[in-house]
Amino acid sequence: MAKKNKIQRPKARRPRGFEDKSSDILRSEARLIEAAFSVYDANGFEPLQTPAFEYADVLGKFLPDEDRPNVGVFALRDDDEQWMALRYDLTAPLARFVAENYDALAKPYRRYQAGSVFRNEKPGPGRFREFVQCDADSVGAPGAAADTEMIMLAADVMKAVGLETGGYVIRVNNRKLLDGILEASGVPNTEEGAIQRLKVLRAIDKLDRLGADGVAALLGEGREDESGDYTEGAKLNAAGVKAVLGFTTASATDRGDTMNTLASLVGSSSAGQAGVDELKMIDAILGACDYGPDRVVFDTSIVRGLGYYTGPVFEAELLADIKDKKGRPVRIGSVGGGGRYDDLVSRFRGQAVPATGFSFGVSRFASALARLNPEQQGESAPVIICAFDRELMGEYFKMAAELRAAGIRAEVFVGAGNVAKQLKYADRRGAKLAVLMGSDELERGEVTIKDLVLGAEMAKAISDNKEWRENKDMQRSCKRDQFVATIKEMSA
Amino acid sequence: MAKKNKIQRPKARRPRGFEDKSSDILRSEARLIEAAFSVYDANGFEPLQTPAFEYADVLGKFLPDEDRPNVGVFALRDDDEQWMALRYDLTAPLARFVAENYDALAKPYRRYQAGSVFRNEKPGPGRFREFVQCDADSVGAPGAAADTEMIMLAADVMKAVGLETGGYVIRVNNRKLLDGILEASGVPNTEEGAIQRLKVLRAIDKLDRLGADGVAALLGEGREDESGDYTEGAKLNAAGVKAVLGFTTASATDRGDTMNTLASLVGSSSAGQAGVDELKMIDAILGACDYGPDRVVFDTSIVRGLGYYTGPVFEAELLADIKDKKGRPVRIGSVGGGGRYDDLVSRFRGQAVPATGFSFGVSRFASALARLNPEQQGESAPVIICAFDRELMGEYFKMAAELRAAGIRAEVFVGAGNVAKQLKYADRRGAKLAVLMGSDELERGEVTIKDLVLGAEMAKAISDNKEWRENKDMQRSCKRDQFVATIKEMSA
Repeated sequence: MAKKNKIQRPKARRPRGFEDKSSDILRSEARLIEAAFSVYDANGFEPLQTPAFEYADVLGKFLPDEDRPNVGVFALRDDDEQWMALRYDLTAPLARFVAENYDALAKPYRRYQAGSVFRNEKPGPGRFREFVQCDADSVGAPGAAADTEMIMLAADVMKAVGLETGGYVIRVNNRKLLDGILEASGVPNTEEGAIQRLKVLRAIDKLDRLGADGVAALLGEGREDESGDYTEGAKLNAAGVKAVLGFTTASATDRGDTMNTLASLVGSSSAGQAGVDELKMIDAILGACDYGPDRVVFDTSIVRGLGYYTGPVFEAELLADIKDKKGRPVRIGSVGGGGRYDDLVSRFRGQAVPATGFSFGVSRFASALARLNPEQQGESAPVIICAFDRELMGEYFKMAAELRAAGIRAEVFVGAGNVAKQLKYADRRGAKLAVLMGSDELERGEVTIKDLVLGAEMAKAISDNKEWRENKDMQRSCKRDQFVATIKEMSA
Repeated sequence: MAKKNKIQRPKARRPRGFEDKSSDILRSEARLIEAAFSVYDANGFEPLQTPAFEYADVLGKFLPDEDRPNVGVFALRDDDEQWMALRYDLTAPLARFVAENYDALAKPYRRYQAGSVFRNEKPGPGRFREFVQCDADSVGAPGAAADTEMIMLAADVMKAVGLETGGYVIRVNNRKLLDGILEASGVPNTEEGAIQRLKVLRAIDKLDRLGADGVAALLGEGREDESGDYTEGAKLNAAGVKAVLGFTTASATDRGDTMNTLASLVGSSSAGQAGVDELKMIDAILGACDYGPDRVVFDTSIVRGLGYYTGPVFEAELLADIKDKKGRPVRIGSVGGGGRYDDLVSRFRGQAVPATGFSFGVSRFASALARLNPEQQGESAPVIICAFDRELMGEYFKMAAELRAAGIRAEVFVGAGNVAKQLKYADRRGAKLAVLMGSDELERGEVTIKDLVLGAEMAKAISDNKEWRENKDMQRSCKRDQFVATIKEMSA
């Protein structure tokens, strides 16, 4: 390496839409993933880690709002000319893994995985091109019982991260119900109607943002947004638009009531009836395991934007009272979701491999939790051992090791600068205590400990400089062998 | 989504050089990272996570053996035409982060990070194009005390993952010593001699593989390998080759002896003398903190291949007695290393920002540990609740929840298949116990628990089919409310 770059210095900057994550949010994310993993472990799931790259044809094209090829993903050609792309979720790679190792896996194959996924999209506030997802899935699991397990897992994760009942809800729907209603409105429940069904799903998914009128336009002819962009509609007739909108508002608090309404809405459609039967099974298991309507509801406005779902779908929503820094309520909404996707593995194998899963957005969920429990975020700041005598470095490190052995986070200052600079560093780190020891003190067998928090308070309150310097609480001397005990006392 | 891909099925396969990691190795890796993180936390380091992508000019070109541009990394053009590349290590992104946020960071800035790094190289056995590194670094830390801290952290991580003293060693060297010896051999210690110095480093780094003669050739004119490929040498004269080879074998078990030898070897070179002084400081701190030569040695054969090191360098080596499946000893060698790199941040800022760090290869280290402690690897297999009555699914899930509440891993079978298939699944999962309950048993308030391990043993030992069926140990019935207690008893 050239010791100095004489030609041109690179500018230190990140690519757009990529973020550096700092300690508080990382600790929060790690706690979240750990809680979810222990739920999945207890339920018999096993960890899996697939690579970041997959072949582009293996990933397929299931991203919402991306019907064009090679858009939405980061793709490059390998040196054998095959296109590889970074995964955009953890489900498509799972499907590839199961298809590739089909005979070696005991079915159902139930795994969990957390990791970065990548979307080559226009970045925006809170919208990144790399973000972390955490998933659990059962592959080779055909019945609604497997979906119910996923729903219960979602509720269990909410509980495991410390949310109280009432602080979250899992909202459950079934794609088959909508298939049934669309069938009754003249959209065939076959491949022929696939694109139209997807447009309907994406329209319903915008109910929150656009309201009933905006969605009605997207279900019918189409809609021009404020910027003048025109989105082609799903071209349902007026009766169809009415039926779909009626369906999205059909849910009640009581799961039984909702099922009765839905049974009459889907009429004689076989897909619709199958959907109602599955909800009945889900309700029965939830009831037996005591997941009441305060934790899990049926909600027909939930559809999930992804094209690959084929049956029950659900979302996990935070209801807890979250406020921003100015005290205004913040609506977090969905922090995760999932559902049944029976066709993803059969893409590779031809034969049916039914599957269901749950995924949550780690960053989104963690930042919501951090706002809920701000006191839970940080790690206590370390005790800083100032270093002002090169000859005593060994002794300083020994003192730090003694503190750590007593369970106290501690570090020796290894930067550049005099004691004033070192105390400023301790202050910026948020340290409460700093330790000072020179060669004269070492000779006397003494250590000085400064309380920086108290020092800062007193600096404000005391005008007399002499009084400030002599204040005993702010600074204490102790014997070297009483050092750890004194630190413990002053930390309390 | 099209329900069936009628044109052509994608083949389920991974890009070359990328791996799927399964549960045992992942649990082992997670334990390793957790142990390292808690050491770093206790020492006052904070977590950081930088994105996978950086601008290509920000990453620079520091990969060993890669002097050609755009080789060795996965790069693509962003839609604004700037080249982005996936990070090849965690150090270059850290340098970018510090340079970008310089004034906002308290110095020294001490962070840890674990994550995937990517190398676009020819894959081979155990050589992947994506792998996980775990790093700790101090930036803005000029003295040998900061390097010593890194060396002690490396030793602490070895201990934290469960290795005994004697099972590992940290080998320490100093680039400045070699700079001094090369200076005495006519290689100027300036930018002018940079390429020659790098060739010398890479030659020494091959000492293990090529032996003294091979390295001597690479230090001199050059070397033709077995395949006929010719590598240009560093062009040292005969005295220079001799001095360098003498240096690489100068180390003794006692750190003091080594320092004395080195002091005479570097002669009057100022770089060499600075290198010896730093080793003295390192030795003094290690001595005070009780890191004896059984844990840390000075070893002049360690140079580290990366071009950016400027001072002390070190490697962490496993010495533990590891055997392969056939009982042959396996040499693991270095599982991590690090050193001082004072120029990486100044690439961006022009001003000096001294830094030092430690990095280990998570997969390599974890697989070595897994071979050392095979019994530590797994998670106990779950109890499998067989599901053979659709109407009882709620009850099955309730039973699984009761087991989990008692701390027992448990799952309901959610796949397809009759009881025989379900028992086979339980067997493939390695489960010891399977639970059976039909509607008649539910009515009697009873549950049947099968011991699959005992069952398999007995199936081998007992020829009489009737005796086998009636054996009480293999299968027990209990009251529904005694179910958890009975499972506990049978698990023991």
